[in-house]
Amino acid sequence: MKGTVFHGPHDVRVERVEDPALETPTDALVRITRAGICGSDLHFYHGAFPIEPGFVLGHEGVGVIEEVGAGVERLKKGQRVVVSGVVACGRCFFCRRGQSSQCAEAGGAVFGYGANSAGKFGSLGGEQSEAVRVPMADYTCYPLSDAIDDDAAVFLADILPTSFFGAVNGNIRPGDTVAIFGCGPVGLCAVMSAKLFGPAEVIAVDSIDYRLELARKLGAFPVNASAAHQTILDRTEGRGADVTIEAVGNEGALSAAIMAARGGGTVSVIGAFGAPSFNFPIGYAFARDLTFRIGLANINAHIPELARLIERGTLDPRPLISHVMPLDDAAKGYEIFNARKDNVMKVLLKP
Amino acid sequence: MKGTVFHGPHDVRVERVEDPALETPTDALVRITRAGICGSDLHFYHGAFPIEPGFVLGHEGVGVIEEVGAGVERLKKGQRVVVSGVVACGRCFFCRRGQSSQCAEAGGAVFGYGANSAGKFGSLGGEQSEAVRVPMADYTCYPLSDAIDDDAAVFLADILPTSFFGAVNGNIRPGDTVAIFGCGPVGLCAVMSAKLFGPAEVIAVDSIDYRLELARKLGAFPVNASAAHQTILDRTEGRGADVTIEAVGNEGALSAAIMAARGGGTVSVIGAFGAPSFNFPIGYAFARDLTFRIGLANINAHIPELARLIERGTLDPRPLISHVMPLDDAAKGYEIFNARKDNVMKVLLKP
Amino acid sequence: MKGTVFHGPHDVRVERVEDPALETPTDALVRITRAGICGSDLHFYHGAFPIEPGFVLGHEGVGVIEEVGAGVERLKKGQRVVVSGVVACGRCFFCRRGQSSQCAEAGGAVFGYGANSAGKFGSLGGEQSEAVRVPMADYTCYPLSDAIDDDAAVFLADILPTSFFGAVNGNIRPGDTVAIFGCGPVGLCAVMSAKLFGPAEVIAVDSIDYRLELARKLGAFPVNASAAHQTILDRTEGRGADVTIEAVGNEGALSAAIMAARGGGTVSVIGAFGAPSFNFPIGYAFARDLTFRIGLANINAHIPELARLIERGTLDPRPLISHVMPLDDAAKGYEIFNARKDNVMKVLLKP
Amino acid sequence: MKGTVFHGPHDVRVERVEDPALETPTDALVRITRAGICGSDLHFYHGAFPIEPGFVLGHEGVGVIEEVGAGVERLKKGQRVVVSGVVACGRCFFCRRGQSSQCAEAGGAVFGYGANSAGKFGSLGGEQSEAVRVPMADYTCYPLSDAIDDDAAVFLADILPTSFFGAVNGNIRPGDTVAIFGCGPVGLCAVMSAKLFGPAEVIAVDSIDYRLELARKLGAFPVNASAAHQTILDRTEGRGADVTIEAVGNEGALSAAIMAARGGGTVSVIGAFGAPSFNFPIGYAFARDLTFRIGLANINAHIPELARLIERGTLDPRPLISHVMPLDDAAKGYEIFNARKDNVMKVLLKP
Repeated sequence: MKGTVFHGPHDVRVERVEDPALETPTDALVRITRAGICGSDLHFYHGAFPIEPGFVLGHEGVGVIEEVGAGVERLKKGQRVVVSGVVACGRCFFCRRGQSSQCAEAGGAVFGYGANSAGKFGSLGGEQSEAVRVPMADYTCYPLSDAIDDDAAVFLADILPTSFFGAVNGNIRPGDTVAIFGCGPVGLCAVMSAKLFGPAEVIAVDSIDYRLELARKLGAFPVNASAAHQTILDRTEGRGADVTIEAVGNEGALSAAIMAARGGGTVSVIGAFGAPSFNFPIGYAFARDLTFRIGLANINAHIPELARLIERGTLDPRPLISHVMPLDDAAKGYEIFNARKDNVMKVLLKP
Repeated sequence: MKGTVFHGPHDVRVERVEDPALETPTDALVRITRAGICGSDLHFYHGAFPIEPGFVLGHEGVGVIEEVGAGVERLKKGQRVVVSGVVACGRCFFCRRGQSSQCAEAGGAVFGYGANSAGKFGSLGGEQSEAVRVPMADYTCYPLSDAIDDDAAVFLADILPTSFFGAVNGNIRPGDTVAIFGCGPVGLCAVMSAKLFGPAEVIAVDSIDYRLELARKLGAFPVNASAAHQTILDRTEGRGADVTIEAVGNEGALSAAIMAARGGGTVSVIGAFGAPSFNFPIGYAFARDLTFRIGLANINAHIPELARLIERGTLDPRPLISHVMPLDDAAKGYEIFNARKDNVMKVLLKP
Repeated sequence: MKGTVFHGPHDVRVERVEDPALETPTDALVRITRAGICGSDLHFYHGAFPIEPGFVLGHEGVGVIEEVGAGVERLKKGQRVVVSGVVACGRCFFCRRGQSSQCAEAGGAVFGYGANSAGKFGSLGGEQSEAVRVPMADYTCYPLSDAIDDDAAVFLADILPTSFFGAVNGNIRPGDTVAIFGCGPVGLCAVMSAKLFGPAEVIAVDSIDYRLELARKLGAFPVNASAAHQTILDRTEGRGADVTIEAVGNEGALSAAIMAARGGGTVSVIGAFGAPSFNFPIGYAFARDLTFRIGLANINAHIPELARLIERGTLDPRPLISHVMPLDDAAKGYEIFNARKDNVMKVLLKP
Repeated sequence: MKGTVFHGPHDVRVERVEDPALETPTDALVRITRAGICGSDLHFYHGAFPIEPGFVLGHEGVGVIEEVGAGVERLKKGQRVVVSGVVACGRCFFCRRGQSSQCAEAGGAVFGYGANSAGKFGSLGGEQSEAVRVPMADYTCYPLSDAIDDDAAVFLADILPTSFFGAVNGNIRPGDTVAIFGCGPVGLCAVMSAKLFGPAEVIAVDSIDYRLELARKLGAFPVNASAAHQTILDRTEGRGADVTIEAVGNEGALSAAIMAARGGGTVSVIGAFGAPSFNFPIGYAFARDLTFRIGLANINAHIPELARLIERGTLDPRPLISHVMPLDDAAKGYEIFNARKDNVMKVLLKP
């Protein structure tokens, strides 16, 4: 089959790779019909996250079941599914609590993140390709109704559940003010997710105009990063936001999110952080009574309710799609996304 | 001053009554600038709820502070406020838990409900008048910002918090299906309140076309009562609604709401019930694992977040207003509301 | 094998019955080492719940895995397990929400309740026997650590999770007063379960002295049913209990539980109710702002945390055991339990 | 009157100071009958927190109302009360949410913490004295029933609510494993508070033997700090604790608490932190999905339920009292507490 192969920084190529095949009775084989390029894929592209050259990238995929192992109970050949970017069993100590990112069986295995990230599953190939092997398929694949098209469904594989997780962690209540730092694809999904909890206002912070404009269209109050702190205070009688969400994965944005939360408020982090340490303002947080939540999202646990919201037309992530390209053009997709050209937001690939 | 006086069934008249005056140090005197006629006022109008002839009606009022007692800390002459329909202290066992309808000090005292309902406050006059004495004013009055006009604010006195209470009691979660039985003013406020909790769909049930049409405009899926049960099953893969809200105060609607809830679902009642008994389907409820919640709303507790939502433009109850009349025309207002003439929905009075 | 067979009211006999065998790939076969007689089994014994003569009774069983189907992932021959009295899949819409009693796949199938209760599983035999076939074994069986002996583990099959479900439904908070109506085995388990939520006091109501005495030993404040209402008011400054739990399945007890709850309180029902109707005091409940919850417990969902509490010695249901008998004496066990002889509380059988 | 006056590091003296007097209508004057020395008072004693020489120390006091201002509604001369260590209004944006430590009116004013900490109240004297002026007395004082003696009540002024706040923040659920770092008075109160939420086990960590022994008597599993990490893993199948509570205010203990929490777990901090920065292991926390909560406790909000628990005998902090001394011996009390002599735990003073 064809797959988007990492060769080195700024060098990805679509080329022939080995076809995936079932390995255990609970595996399924999924033929990919739509895949996304995620902001975290750019970390590989930049060389910031190391990955083996020759590895197929991609953890956002939608497709059709091609084959299932003998132990798969809930899936059938021909069924349309979204594949959760993170594998989980659905039954362990953690999955029973909805904390599927910590699944005791799957150990946080992610598609297309390199052999190191596949845990006991060996090499877990990427979904910017024609097909993928999915372990623990009953819980890792989620069947799609016809009311959700592939373009919408690809958001269910990662960034919509990730942003929803951030909103849940924020414990947003009706009437709250929520400030979201970062208006990339995840941040804008967070605008949509936050609005599901009835806030009086969502303030969206970024420094790129076309992103702020999109935030405004999605119902947020947009503000340039340079004016964010004062604007948030002004719009909350000087208190700060009830909930702030960091959606960048950047220390400066995180500090800003902490300083913009009100006393007794919550800082919820969905940006990816890999550094060993962050200078947390502990004395300030103590005086202000802060809740700080950070983590890999529990994607599998949140797909069902988000799927239902898309099905009923209440939630629609498709306005975030800026580019849909053939799989063969994946290299160009990476380049555009990386360069923030063409008002790029979400880039999808069609195998 | 002038007030809307009850003389007997179908006989209310605006006439001169005694001016209210401060009686205790924590009272405030409020000059009314806008008042509503509530569905529950029609019970007096019909003679269904007994009330002393000569009593001034009305428990939905917005106005301006005229005078405060020596013990009032948070209000000043000239301040615009909404007056909660139910009095509460804000500090007792119940108020500390947000259950202000059960306030140990106020005992559920309601404005304009007759001397019996005023608890220890003696005669607590109605707000379809030029002025009203408000006990425990610090917690019973809520200061309004300029961003909330009188027409919107009058909804904060009762029916918006009541509907919000119903939505809170329903424990609605993102992705849920909510079915609301009854599309009068409270039911339509419940449509708006339910949507604050991120449901995938709100199904609105009534048998009057113009009400269903308004429900549709507010974002609900409207359905005639006769087809409601089957429609709810059809739209939930046969399960029933996650949450049903009874917003009529009628046994038939209540039975329908119980039978339309899914296994493990919640039935939340905001319609007013006075009968001593209801034939609750106990064996059915046991097999289905139902939660049933009913009560007088905790109005005072919910005003702040709802006020904030209106201020920020996220919530706007004004599309429910069908008539705004001078106080002098109150009798005509009652007649129209009672007869469901002129596509009547919410009738407001301007003293 | 031998099983406890229902022949007619007051007539159960231990006799030879057909050996169970695997029927689907997700079944397991469990050799029973300990079984309980449940209060709800007495309904069959009395003839109040109809059941086919010749049916083996019992839904409380602990044992050892004898054989598993090809699709069973988490169980092995030789493993000790408790079998949840109710079958559930662990993965459907309901199980994902922890509402396993409503499982879409199992449809509330109960062991030993007659062919009608076995749903799609055909005849689901009882566990007062030497062995039982367990469908959906991965979720219906729960592996036991050595720290939990058979006598304690049998409580995990039904009455401990049932009582815990009642406590969860009561939404008990630290400092609350909880009143439990009924001090049979389920009611006394409810005393233990309620105490996990930090109440200031648990008031236990019954009219049989030895049961009240046992309630007292478990840390409750015991009170005779005739004095319960006044005692509850006296011990709550006249408010009523924050939470009342009905653990009998009797209309009188249910009415008492409703009338003893404070304004804004919760009535949680774990007694079994089969009647089509109950005279619910709707006007009273409206004025008092009551939450009423009733249902078949989500046993499978609650076993893990309760197992852990027993393992660590924090919870110990064994003081409720009054009789342990050989399986052959099951008829005598039913007779004693039914007659409330010998200070009977929980009767266990040893195959 | 007499008060415990700070003169300099390791130099406090009981001497004559000016009598307090009412200053605003919502003040009360409380004659102190019992006061505590808090671990945080030692920071002044060490010179680590600066305070004006001549200032009276102490924020843990119980006493009798001597006089009330005209605006005090709920208190009367002669009433026994506990005084919350932190002043709060009970009615602002924050107090309505139970976040009284952030009270918009009081601004976190603390008794006996120096003029800087008294906010708009000017100089807010300490309670290791014969009397104290209490602002916002209706919410800052809590009336005591006779069932709570002075020795127990003094724990309600700070350390019991603080530890309870830590347990609430931990979101402890029945069956959880909780690890508490630090077995000083606050840590041991946290053992008691955590147990109100039904954990399977509370693991108490310290390096002083008599403290660990007291933890064991209170029902915890004691472990020396040096072995804590491995013991916690061993007792949780290698996962780590569901909830860890830092009760020291020390960076090493905080790091240990973070590393001992399981994936998806919560770290709740009740130790006092004043440093500008802490090296938070952000990449680790991201991979592990951690919730981190830190803050000044909402004392006033939690006193009622804790008072009720003491009243009913369910909670008894008095085993923590190691010394009760006359007020005149306060200097000796500080010395003993500071030196950890005589198996010191909680030192109380009797004016």
